[in-house]
This record gives sequence, C-alpha cells and structure tokens, in this order.
Amino acid sequence: VVIARRFKAIGVVHSPFKRAEDIPMELNADPHGFEAVESEIEIFSEFEPGLKDLDGFSHLLVVFVFHAAGEARLLVRPPFETELRGVFATRSPHRPNPIGLTVVKLLGRTGAVLRVSGFDAVESTPVLDIKPYTRKDQKADIRTGWIKN
Amino acid sequence: VVIARRFKAIGVVHSPFKRAEDIPMELNADPHGFEAVESEIEIFSEFEPGLKDLDGFSHLLVVFVFHAAGEARLLVRPPFETELRGVFATRSPHRPNPIGLTVVKLLGRTGAVLRVSGFDAVESTPVLDIKPYTRKDQKADIRTGWIKN
Repeated sequence: VVIARRFKAIGVVHSPFKRAEDIPMELNADPHGFEAVESEIEIFSEFEPGLKDLDGFSHLLVVFVFHAAGEARLLVRPPFETELRGVFATRSPHRPNPIGLTVVKLLGRTGAVLRVSGFDAVESTPVLDIKPYTRKDQKADIRTGWIKN
Repeated sequence: VVIARRFKAIGVVHSPFKRAEDIPMELNADPHGFEAVESEIEIFSEFEPGLKDLDGFSHLLVVFVFHAAGEARLLVRPPFETELRGVFATRSPHRPNPIGLTVVKLLGRTGAVLRVSGFDAVESTPVLDIKPYTRKDQKADIRTGWIKN
C-alpha cells in the first residue's frame, strides 16, 4: 500500500536566518529559544482567500519542507547529544519525508503576508500548509523521552 | 519560486472508522471527543529503525494524507458552522495540499506498530511522518478565533 503524493508550495518563509548555519545552536536547546525571532510567511496570492479568519488565532501550525536537508537517515545524533536517536523520536530535518512542523505565534497579517515569531525555518523555506493551533493541540502532563528539560 | 515535492507513505493507519461517514459528528466538536478512540499506526518495516526512542514520549504529532479528501477549496464550511471560513483557519481536509496533522497519545509499541488514542484519521490513511510532541508544542493562553469552546 505504498503511495506517493505530490505537494506544492503555498508560500515561502522570509527569515533572519539565511542558512541553517546562521542559527545559533543554543536556540534549539531552549524551548523558548526562538520566541524572540521574527519571520514572515509570504503566501502566494492565489491562496490568499484561504487566509480569511486566520487573524483570530494566536498560534499557527506551519507545515514546511526541509528543502536543504540532504539525505534521510533513520538514526540521527541531535545537537548536544552523544547517542544516536530514532529519527521519528526527533525533529531532525533528515527524515524519510523532509517535512518540518513548527508552532508559531501570529503577530499580524498584511494581505498575504503573515508576521510570526518563534519560527525556526530558514530563508526561502517552502511552506506546504498553515493550520490553526487549537485546544486539541494543547497537551498537558507530557513525557518527552530523551529530551532534557 | 513554486516548488513541488513528492512524498511517500512511511506507514498506514488502522482505525475503527472505516470511512469518514463513520465518524460521529459530535466527536469533531468536542476537544476531547477522540480521546477514547484507539487506533494503530503500522510503520512499514524498512522505516522501523527510525522508531527507536519513541517509547519515551507520551504524545506524538502524526502527519498524514487526507487521501479521500476530494478537491481543494479556499473557503470551507466547518461542521455545525453557518459561515464560510478560510481553509487555513480550519483543519478541513479540503486543503491545497491534503496534509492532515493530529496530536495523538502513544499507548504502546509492538515492533513497527504504534497503538495510539485520540486519532481522527480513517482506516488506510497514509502516514507521512511521526514526530515527538515536545515542550515547544505546548502553548498556553491561546486564542482560537471562530472556534467555540
């Protein structure tokens, strides 16, 4: 039952980080590390009508492509870690499908441009989807395995 | 800068809901509606090594394909709503890229099969990615726009 599907970018990220190497390593280790980072998500004009009602949400789930990820691996070594971890137990870009996901804060919208904070994607990252963050996405009392707090 | 990418299924969902019509409408309206629903995610054996360390996480983000979604729309009418909403302000399957995302609770793992609860995907849904739900995904004090609580 192996299926493959083709997805297209609905927009593109404009980030203060031009390349992955521009992101300070400490930011990834801190759950609040990216909160002060502001980016823009430019939605292509043909999709702009789909942004109606988005302004009422404080947070968005952004689904994007790790477009510069290189080859997939099933075991990866996260930053500051010595052990290899299963890729599905990490947010590494080196995944079988190079799809990234980040919860961002929506600061404002001007036409088809969303101003957000907390986004760890680099300049020119293709965006596949935007979804509202809702109560169903809030989980309390979580266990986070190998990730140190 | 419109790019398109091809993604392949890494696994498949086995759900008590055989088709979308089998899901009681009330479940979607209640943030806890799917909590008692148990499903299995069968990861294809070639990807099983990537599941290492997953057991330590209580919740997972599952990225999947709305494989039976039909055509995309930019304005959709959510269940129980009278107004049309921008599709990116909803979790509707009728999206430009039919990608779904649900936070599920991990109940257990047997080999390449994950037993989960809280999953709203139907039988045979193709899974694109599994990610650990971490502190970065927990957002307090959210606003959820048109969605009634």
